[in-house]
Amino acid sequence: MTARRNFDKALNELENEILRMGSMVERAIYDAVESLAKQDVDLAQRVINGDRDINYLETEIEDRLVTLIATQQPIARDLRRIITGIKIITNLERMGDHAVDIARVTKRIAGQPLIKPLVDIPRMAKISQQMVKDGLDAYVRSDVEKAKYMCSLDDEVDHLYSQVFRELLTYMMEDPKTIAQATSLLFVARFLERIADYATNIGEAVIYLVTGERFDLNL
Amino acid sequence: MTARRNFDKALNELENEILRMGSMVERAIYDAVESLAKQDVDLAQRVINGDRDINYLETEIEDRLVTLIATQQPIARDLRRIITGIKIITNLERMGDHAVDIARVTKRIAGQPLIKPLVDIPRMAKISQQMVKDGLDAYVRSDVEKAKYMCSLDDEVDHLYSQVFRELLTYMMEDPKTIAQATSLLFVARFLERIADYATNIGEAVIYLVTGERFDLNL
Repeated sequence: MTARRNFDKALNELENEILRMGSMVERAIYDAVESLAKQDVDLAQRVINGDRDINYLETEIEDRLVTLIATQQPIARDLRRIITGIKIITNLERMGDHAVDIARVTKRIAGQPLIKPLVDIPRMAKISQQMVKDGLDAYVRSDVEKAKYMCSLDDEVDHLYSQVFRELLTYMMEDPKTIAQATSLLFVARFLERIADYATNIGEAVIYLVTGERFDLNL
Repeated sequence: MTARRNFDKALNELENEILRMGSMVERAIYDAVESLAKQDVDLAQRVINGDRDINYLETEIEDRLVTLIATQQPIARDLRRIITGIKIITNLERMGDHAVDIARVTKRIAGQPLIKPLVDIPRMAKISQQMVKDGLDAYVRSDVEKAKYMCSLDDEVDHLYSQVFRELLTYMMEDPKTIAQATSLLFVARFLERIADYATNIGEAVIYLVTGERFDLNL
């Protein structure tokens, strides 16, 4: 094989690993919120235990990406692609941490009936999960349109977050007995909002990779 | 100059830029909490406006670090050092975002008297700020001991966070009129706790850079 084909093959393999890591994180987000909605402590514990694998995979992929730079000395677009890969796995790893944060809330409030059925929180989780999926898809296909669309979903998550925030505040004010649990749920909403931000980082990194333009500098 | 000296000079310059970015972030954390404690809306607005410069500096440093890889094709330790630099600025940028989050709280609760004088929150800010400083110092000096010590401070911040959390919850339960502001302060404490986590990421990256060992995989 030519050096070029060697490089492409190695990068391709690593991108598949990144996709695999992405699926694990998507799953963790889904399971964490599911564990909360159903008060399933076993599922919450599985999310917490599973984070070890996600972290391990991150360090493994990162080491392999850095080795690829060192051995193949890629330049320009190839190099950018690898650096983007490193950024993506960093963001994925952080989302995984927040899935754990959510699972911990499940364990903390286990046994108390939920102050309300969860509607907007699972919706936030669903959108965030889709964002992760689309962001990784945009990365492997260099699909700027998909990346931009995906980033735009962040507004929806932010909107749901404000809604949940106001609603929980109302609960707390009307019935102080709900305060402890409502505060925990408030944090869950915030974790999901951050997860969507991390997904947005992925989309923005893809846009920069493909177009060389910064889509958003958080200005 | 030899290629080696060229490389060292370029990396050195970039590390100084990273230190400059670090000072800006430290300042932003300090000012954000100061604006909250003194209810100084102008200062809060300056923190919010200043984030643009931090974000801009991040992208500029990153571009230059990637260009350095492309043009000098460093291997082994040199390459790792640059990748660590990229990770550090990503973490710094996120801390800056949280400083903005805190400044936004100042603006939101402006005009309402504080439900209590802030003690533990400024203390959390102070430790976090020190962690940032020490982390960057450990990076430029490859000082593993300092990096380890710095990471150990994260426990102190976590401890203060739990303390603030419990205290604010008590306020809310005793007087529902405090709920809105107490919730905002709860988030401030959480932002600071995250800032300390980002600082810890820097310390761990330095430890990995120097020793090749993962100090903590969040296991």
